[in-house]
Amino acid sequence: MSEKTIPYKIYLEESEMPTAWYNLRADMKNKPAPLLDPNTHKPMTADDLAGVFCEELIRQELDDTTAYIEIPEEIRSFYKMYRPAPLVRAYCLEEYLQTPAKIYYKFEGNNTSGSHKLNSAIAQAYYAKKQGLKGVTTETGAGQWGTALSMACSYFGLDCKVFMVKGSYEQKPHRREVMRVYGASVTPSPSTETAVGRKILAEFPGTSGSLGCAISEAVEKAVSTEGYRYVLGSVLNQVLLHQSVIGLESKAAMDKYGIKPDIIIGCAGGGSNLGGLISPFMGEKLRGEADYRFIAVEPSSCPSLTRGVFGYDYCDTGMICPLSKMYTLGSGFIPAAHHAGGLRYHGMNSVLSQLYADGLMEAVSVPQTAVFAAAEQFARVEGTLPAPESSHAIRVAIDEALKCKETGEEKTILFGLTGTGYFDMYAYEKFHNGQMDDYTPSDEELEKARASMPVVE
Amino acid sequence: MSEKTIPYKIYLEESEMPTAWYNLRADMKNKPAPLLDPNTHKPMTADDLAGVFCEELIRQELDDTTAYIEIPEEIRSFYKMYRPAPLVRAYCLEEYLQTPAKIYYKFEGNNTSGSHKLNSAIAQAYYAKKQGLKGVTTETGAGQWGTALSMACSYFGLDCKVFMVKGSYEQKPHRREVMRVYGASVTPSPSTETAVGRKILAEFPGTSGSLGCAISEAVEKAVSTEGYRYVLGSVLNQVLLHQSVIGLESKAAMDKYGIKPDIIIGCAGGGSNLGGLISPFMGEKLRGEADYRFIAVEPSSCPSLTRGVFGYDYCDTGMICPLSKMYTLGSGFIPAAHHAGGLRYHGMNSVLSQLYADGLMEAVSVPQTAVFAAAEQFARVEGTLPAPESSHAIRVAIDEALKCKETGEEKTILFGLTGTGYFDMYAYEKFHNGQMDDYTPSDEELEKARASMPVVE
Repeated sequence: MSEKTIPYKIYLEESEMPTAWYNLRADMKNKPAPLLDPNTHKPMTADDLAGVFCEELIRQELDDTTAYIEIPEEIRSFYKMYRPAPLVRAYCLEEYLQTPAKIYYKFEGNNTSGSHKLNSAIAQAYYAKKQGLKGVTTETGAGQWGTALSMACSYFGLDCKVFMVKGSYEQKPHRREVMRVYGASVTPSPSTETAVGRKILAEFPGTSGSLGCAISEAVEKAVSTEGYRYVLGSVLNQVLLHQSVIGLESKAAMDKYGIKPDIIIGCAGGGSNLGGLISPFMGEKLRGEADYRFIAVEPSSCPSLTRGVFGYDYCDTGMICPLSKMYTLGSGFIPAAHHAGGLRYHGMNSVLSQLYADGLMEAVSVPQTAVFAAAEQFARVEGTLPAPESSHAIRVAIDEALKCKETGEEKTILFGLTGTGYFDMYAYEKFHNGQMDDYTPSDEELEKARASMPVVE
Repeated sequence: MSEKTIPYKIYLEESEMPTAWYNLRADMKNKPAPLLDPNTHKPMTADDLAGVFCEELIRQELDDTTAYIEIPEEIRSFYKMYRPAPLVRAYCLEEYLQTPAKIYYKFEGNNTSGSHKLNSAIAQAYYAKKQGLKGVTTETGAGQWGTALSMACSYFGLDCKVFMVKGSYEQKPHRREVMRVYGASVTPSPSTETAVGRKILAEFPGTSGSLGCAISEAVEKAVSTEGYRYVLGSVLNQVLLHQSVIGLESKAAMDKYGIKPDIIIGCAGGGSNLGGLISPFMGEKLRGEADYRFIAVEPSSCPSLTRGVFGYDYCDTGMICPLSKMYTLGSGFIPAAHHAGGLRYHGMNSVLSQLYADGLMEAVSVPQTAVFAAAEQFARVEGTLPAPESSHAIRVAIDEALKCKETGEEKTILFGLTGTGYFDMYAYEKFHNGQMDDYTPSDEELEKARASMPVVE
């Protein structure tokens, strides 16, 4: 098909939207390692997990053989409220860079939650409702997951209890208010509502909290409250499954116009967006039907793939969640406080970790000032103001496009634009005012953080 | 076409997007009255306006006979970056309200500026660039217009100088930062940069500014700076012309599915969204081809149509802009400080004013707590978090749908959802915390404000 007939934005028809999620694990020869009990180090069964998670979600978490899992009608109906997400041809960015590369991005910010997180939030809320639960608990840091879950719970009439890292709660009051619009209750963490929160408050009275602490509070609240379960917006395999809708739509839109990407780029914190975006493409690669380069982009201040180790680790700082085999910096690792944009998780989803270990995916880390510079460039030419997290992918997409400019190669680049930066203007302000600096943890620091990892035989 | 085949969101193909704006004035028997010189009270010619506005925009402002004005290729190309805007069927809201009414909304928030303002901003920036200008000046209150203009100027490489009402500048620092991302310079108004600003500062040292004052500063800056002109985001007829793209797309999408609206509802401040949305439908009504009910919704705290008078008035508080014949509360009118959501302009676009005077359009005013209640209902069922301005239209759309529930009528309702409320969370917070109250100006107050109107023979 001729170049000129490719529109700025490719929207699928409703009838072209995916009807099933794709479970990448089914096509993996080396399956991701099972979750282990944090105490016994034995593989977790569905029964072991039933007190914490919803039943159907546990089934999805443990299923590594079913390739396609049907998306229930109620979820598809909700997806239609804000999906299909557009696949955008970055004509303006290409022209600005004067690159022969063809750049596409899948834009997931077209919903009030402002990010791709809603794709999994609605699925998790649906299964909680179907199980007859009263509500769910969760934690949120930057706030995108909490916002998405609040929307989803509001839609199904479920209670939603969010533990929000205290520092974010105070720094991002507007994020908090969005959650309240959707009827969620938002508690700054650590709080006096849980035993673990009270313990931490007693030990560190002035603490501004951490994601690890908020997870522990949310889990405790769920298991100790009748009719509640805990839900999580990243890291888990079920989340990757739901997020495969990103990749499936991207691939359908590209196939429609006969476009084949050479490089697929995604930002990586816990891996929800990256895993979802690459899933169907990686499936083709695993089945030997096509080849692609995949690049995970992480912040140099929290470099779990590029500088972590591959092994079993705790998923939370409180060490009460199952152990997962993954690339990790150690659950005690906390990124420098002046790191502005998300992607602060110490580990990485186990599917992505296995793929990376098997050499099927690349990873790079980038410093935050370079990320914000890319974000601003992008905003000025493409119009959309990107979230700092998404801008990690923009940085590397631009870098790859500039390499094409040098070599003259007409590569096709696809990246995930996971969301908008409306609630991150304080970080943009720091960048503008020259108050943002870069931080790379020292080898000694990483060594020390790794000491918190469990010894698993 | 059967009900079930209408999708949640109707997107036009790029090839179905409008190629010309529709100039409603061409079909009006009673044309809007001409702009008058504020000193001589004689009609303004293109020459009179040339020092303030761009040439092509003046032509558009004064042209009341050409029905279709071609959208330049460069502007159409930019439109494609964020348009077509979806026409959404509010299935979830209908179900929630249990109404037989069919509700549609045209959603204009799918761009970083967050509102429909970008439709005119890009046109105005384009004509400024084409004229070889260095930059433009403007004012902004709530910030949507300033943001949109910043984006547009960034795209064309024009300087953008925004005078932002000081109260908003301080209350909405994140809005200000968005503009800075796009490279605009943002000055709190009143400032020491202009004679009028210095005068006001000397007189009222602690003032938090007003839209009228910011307009005066922006105009002074434009006429006193080589290579600059002044641009405005509402009130003017050129703005209605550009915003007709909203109505044209809405009509094309509805025609595609054989849908005919019975009632068309828009929020009204200066009239940019309402005028754009209704234009092609009103054209049919004026030509006797179809009939529709049109409802303008304004805040009860700033009720220019429902409680104003129809006559010549100043467009700005500084009384240096041309006089416009319109429904007005008097240029000295300032809405109560605790009014949260936009739509604070004392007057109304002259086309809409004439249509209202001729009985072709209805108007209602609504109190802000009822508006925020509707906004929250809407967000919870439809997902999108609406701007307070847009929520005025939601309020009346819900009211009309509830009337249908009583009567059993299956009316089709179309309303304009002009933008998102991401930067208005402080207002939502006030609403949640029960700190928001309603205000309706007294007859005496309105009487007093009208005293500032000029006497035009």
